[in-house]
Amino acid sequence: MTDAAPTALDVGDLLAEIAEIGRDRVRGGYSRHLFDEADLQLREWFVATSERLGLRVERDGNANLWAWWGDAPTEGQKAVITGSHLDSVPGGGAFDGPLGVVSALAAVSALQVAGHVPSRPVGVVVFAEEEGSRFGTACVGSQLLTGQLDAATALEMRAADGARLGDLFREQGLPEDGLGPDPDRLSRIGAFVELHVEQGAQLAPRASALGVATTILAHGRWRFSFTGRGDHAGSTELASRHDPMLPLAALVVAARTGAEEAPPAARARATVGRMQVVPGATNAIASRVDAWLDARAEHDEDVTALVAGIVELARSAAEDEGVTLEVTRESFSTRVEFDEELTERIAGVLGGVPRIPTGAGHDSGILSPHVPTAMIFVRNPEGVSHAPEENADLADCRAGVDALAAVLRDLT
Amino acid sequence: MTDAAPTALDVGDLLAEIAEIGRDRVRGGYSRHLFDEADLQLREWFVATSERLGLRVERDGNANLWAWWGDAPTEGQKAVITGSHLDSVPGGGAFDGPLGVVSALAAVSALQVAGHVPSRPVGVVVFAEEEGSRFGTACVGSQLLTGQLDAATALEMRAADGARLGDLFREQGLPEDGLGPDPDRLSRIGAFVELHVEQGAQLAPRASALGVATTILAHGRWRFSFTGRGDHAGSTELASRHDPMLPLAALVVAARTGAEEAPPAARARATVGRMQVVPGATNAIASRVDAWLDARAEHDEDVTALVAGIVELARSAAEDEGVTLEVTRESFSTRVEFDEELTERIAGVLGGVPRIPTGAGHDSGILSPHVPTAMIFVRNPEGVSHAPEENADLADCRAGVDALAAVLRDLT
Repeated sequence: MTDAAPTALDVGDLLAEIAEIGRDRVRGGYSRHLFDEADLQLREWFVATSERLGLRVERDGNANLWAWWGDAPTEGQKAVITGSHLDSVPGGGAFDGPLGVVSALAAVSALQVAGHVPSRPVGVVVFAEEEGSRFGTACVGSQLLTGQLDAATALEMRAADGARLGDLFREQGLPEDGLGPDPDRLSRIGAFVELHVEQGAQLAPRASALGVATTILAHGRWRFSFTGRGDHAGSTELASRHDPMLPLAALVVAARTGAEEAPPAARARATVGRMQVVPGATNAIASRVDAWLDARAEHDEDVTALVAGIVELARSAAEDEGVTLEVTRESFSTRVEFDEELTERIAGVLGGVPRIPTGAGHDSGILSPHVPTAMIFVRNPEGVSHAPEENADLADCRAGVDALAAVLRDLT
Repeated sequence: MTDAAPTALDVGDLLAEIAEIGRDRVRGGYSRHLFDEADLQLREWFVATSERLGLRVERDGNANLWAWWGDAPTEGQKAVITGSHLDSVPGGGAFDGPLGVVSALAAVSALQVAGHVPSRPVGVVVFAEEEGSRFGTACVGSQLLTGQLDAATALEMRAADGARLGDLFREQGLPEDGLGPDPDRLSRIGAFVELHVEQGAQLAPRASALGVATTILAHGRWRFSFTGRGDHAGSTELASRHDPMLPLAALVVAARTGAEEAPPAARARATVGRMQVVPGATNAIASRVDAWLDARAEHDEDVTALVAGIVELARSAAEDEGVTLEVTRESFSTRVEFDEELTERIAGVLGGVPRIPTGAGHDSGILSPHVPTAMIFVRNPEGVSHAPEENADLADCRAGVDALAAVLRDLT
């Protein structure tokens, strides 16, 4: 008998380990939100799996997890960080977020098996509440880390079930005064490389399993609160109605036409995918409707112009119906251009893969102004994301791990 | 010391007794739905208050409560029934339903204090799930009683929380084989008079505290299920979207314009006041939207024409977006003409009050084809109903009790 040669962790096995955590039986796919049962299980699994690889895991004050291969970086050191997030949209797919985390662990494992000794610390990060599905603001963990989201604001954020973020953090052992920017931590990061399933289908027609990101569209979220007058659906004359559903319909149409009519170079898109109707009864005219607009475009000023046009049309429809409208910008992320030097270096290591822009926001976009940052995309055959049907071939995922391992080896 | 003269129960006091039960802290007003905590409390309160008046309460197999002054009617007897319902829409007002119940109890009390001895049984009824807020179908108790709703269908109805009506009934001591038509009970009813807060404001400009009903508009509920393709709101190109929110917007607009463009004599109205968006995330294009259309008009064929036009527009918008549409009629109530002889007799007792039609459905409309039925309306100053702002002056409510007592005295 001889000792079996050590084998690296496989990305397919790692995905299978978490495949039953946080399934959404109603929507399909997964619902994994900050510090819910699924998220806590995933965090435990991440710690245990990292420890299997000999990584040391620490949690920062903003609920992000960092697993260090070797010692955590000290002052003057420039660590190489990879990773992504484990939370999902409601009814999201299996890959958006987790693929970046499991690929990071699998890449570290592959380098260990190959006997690579990194010249500087390597860290695998899990950012908290990237999707913003629980508290309405995306990239909470990375935004707090960089100071883009104010700690005082974050502490008072409320989930739909009324939970206050500050209370939730405290219950999880994260003191309220521990939230906020961490410039020391950022200063010890030399590069951040996030691997992510592609959202959209730019790679599929180019027959390439992988790509690197060039830019992220500027994007933001706006809340439209229409307040009318609740009344009986059967007995209220049409002429005396103040039904907030009418201007809501105008908002939905204005979002689509506004994006369609924007200059093609703006690559504008606008979506209403979430709303709350009060009281929400079949036989009652609504008294209030809240709807959320997601608007994106190439440059910040394109988004500003797009949203201004949509607001104008919604406001006019609200006035016609005698309904008041309040519009609140809930978040805004400026256009991101990833680090050109790092991106070109990665593209070189990968043998000249396609360079593609993306409309999806990422923690890498948040870190980008602070740290040299790049992204690797894994092909998504149908391009569907934020839905149970999101997909990636296992062979492409394995190619992603190989690529990430090669990049980490090159950088360390 | 002399014994205090007995005083009748006051409608204001009775309303105050139940004023804290089932308040909706989110929507405002009340949420009281079949066999929820509030409904169970209200049922207990009704039994106790009836017993204070010496009435004997029985619950029929369809979850309706009947409080008898004197013995329950035997074969050949023709009881006089009054009452209404205690459940509400989500975030409904204090009067829709409960006013008819408390006024019935107060009227019986007033007749007792006055020494009236009825010549035939008098019953106060509480019908179950009138609003249909828990199981989606209105007037469940009266529809089961009359056989308009099939027991086998009712047993399998599901609430939004997944609860099955048959299970809920069984948990409440109502066996599944006890649901269904009760022709013996109906045959022993000589007249049903339902007092109700007006829904709409036809009485206010006529300076009359009370009115009697002539007709109820034909009305029904249709479910529109739009199925598109869930995807990422940021990365999905406009041209490749199948977003069910777009045809939903068309449905909302079509409902309003369809009702506006119907002939004035049809008195058409159409409303979308309830919807469910899946997955319901800001950064996700919806995969599916369900919306409920409430449509009403003077005659059955007016409703049919109205809904056909709305469906056509919604279907066309769905096709434009590559979204499938399934339309299901969930309920339909034919036009009601209340019993002319009974109505004229009541109007005479009340001294010639206005005769008004109504667009709102009622248990009295369900009983109307089976039993001589009439309605008394109490003025609603602003006309608002199915909303927390629903209102009636206490003086008008007291006038309603006096009128109902006079009518019961006249009929017995």
